[in-house]
Amino acid sequence: MTYCLAIRVEEGLVFCSDSRTNAGIDNMIAYSKMHRFSWTHKRHFTLLSSGNLATTQAVVKKLHLDINENAPANLQTIGSLQEAVDYVGRTNALIQHQQNNRDLTGTNFEATFIFGGQIAGHKPEIFLVYPQGNYIHESHEHPFLQIGETKYGKPILDRVIVPGLDLARAGRCALVSMNSTTRSNATVGPPLELLMHKNNVLEKGLYLHLTDTDPFLQAVSSGWNEGLILALENLPKFAWEEDREDDHAVGRVRPFPFVPKNS
Amino acid sequence: MTYCLAIRVEEGLVFCSDSRTNAGIDNMIAYSKMHRFSWTHKRHFTLLSSGNLATTQAVVKKLHLDINENAPANLQTIGSLQEAVDYVGRTNALIQHQQNNRDLTGTNFEATFIFGGQIAGHKPEIFLVYPQGNYIHESHEHPFLQIGETKYGKPILDRVIVPGLDLARAGRCALVSMNSTTRSNATVGPPLELLMHKNNVLEKGLYLHLTDTDPFLQAVSSGWNEGLILALENLPKFAWEEDREDDHAVGRVRPFPFVPKNS
Repeated sequence: MTYCLAIRVEEGLVFCSDSRTNAGIDNMIAYSKMHRFSWTHKRHFTLLSSGNLATTQAVVKKLHLDINENAPANLQTIGSLQEAVDYVGRTNALIQHQQNNRDLTGTNFEATFIFGGQIAGHKPEIFLVYPQGNYIHESHEHPFLQIGETKYGKPILDRVIVPGLDLARAGRCALVSMNSTTRSNATVGPPLELLMHKNNVLEKGLYLHLTDTDPFLQAVSSGWNEGLILALENLPKFAWEEDREDDHAVGRVRPFPFVPKNS
Repeated sequence: MTYCLAIRVEEGLVFCSDSRTNAGIDNMIAYSKMHRFSWTHKRHFTLLSSGNLATTQAVVKKLHLDINENAPANLQTIGSLQEAVDYVGRTNALIQHQQNNRDLTGTNFEATFIFGGQIAGHKPEIFLVYPQGNYIHESHEHPFLQIGETKYGKPILDRVIVPGLDLARAGRCALVSMNSTTRSNATVGPPLELLMHKNNVLEKGLYLHLTDTDPFLQAVSSGWNEGLILALENLPKFAWEEDREDDHAVGRVRPFPFVPKNS
């Protein structure tokens, strides 16, 4: 399984991906699902992949090949984000078509991508590219896109992601969404990759590669656990709960009576 | 869709259910999915239902009929929780079997239940009853059970539910898990029902029926939103973020720069 997400806020773009790939639960391996293409001061694109690994690898290989061969459509010279995502979608559909044509086993070769970036002089955008090659973009009302195992990490995004959120908070929120998913589904796992691009800063972006022993990732995970427990402590009480003296001393916060699970 | 959950902590049992039933997205209606059976000082059982509405209604009707007719197996006289859940599973499988026998359309009549309670002198237990009639119980390592749309509300349970948690906190956590689900999936919705039973208090239990305009439910929802935003504020910063003077004045907490979404 896979979990990847992208967020577009007014300040820039966030991309986040896990690295767990499995061909059956007894065959788990790590592959990066974040593919970066950048030309300093000119443009940058990021592709996040889910689905059939052979398809996603073939798509990424084709994108690089087209750049190297200076094909009529390639990411280095293409005129707009719209044309770029159309080209990525076409490439995805084409490769699946080729694989289906020589398949006799009924295998599912589908792949789904998140694609986004910025070209100098254009506004940054993010898109979700379907296996059929068509795509949707994010919106002001729904400023994030997810692929793969999307449900565990969606509630936190639904609650806090708004276009006015700054890039750092959006990045932390992406890590929390990812952390919730890796805890609840063993087929999504580290290393995690996080990439943040500020608008109009056409460089490689702020990139983090986080293994499960990374101190920053561990601090985010344990900090989030503590924050959730505090949030739970601060919720209004049921009418039937007795009002204890010591509650008033610390507002509505009561000391934790239990040891939280390991973060 | 449906979301129901039950939690077993050392202090007692928590049951929580939504009420949204849909036959297609243009036909949403509200039905209680929490069915309570209690005999003061003697025993109480709670059944939470998901799946085919005709099946779940037929199962509940049969359980009541067997009580009224003093059938050899009925919830009022059955000897143990184990026998009771076996009887519920058998009834579920039997009713599906009857419906399948007269069906020519290939309809899915499956239903899944959470069943639990306590009989005087016995320990309280909770079970998840599959459409096939077999069942599993919760465990020390996994002290909660979920049916229906389970993923959105699972991360909070994974993080904080441990057997030592007190009943009130477990109840609040169930409401939060439900609230996260109703926000992320429109086919799960209020009224919510929450029932808490303290061990060995064989009465009707602490019961709440919460519509979406209920002040307590709204306070829990907005309190949880605020708590999550505070938790996000308190996470460690990225190395590239500048260290601002005013951060130190309030620890790592910075003032909220954005308006959270409506709770």
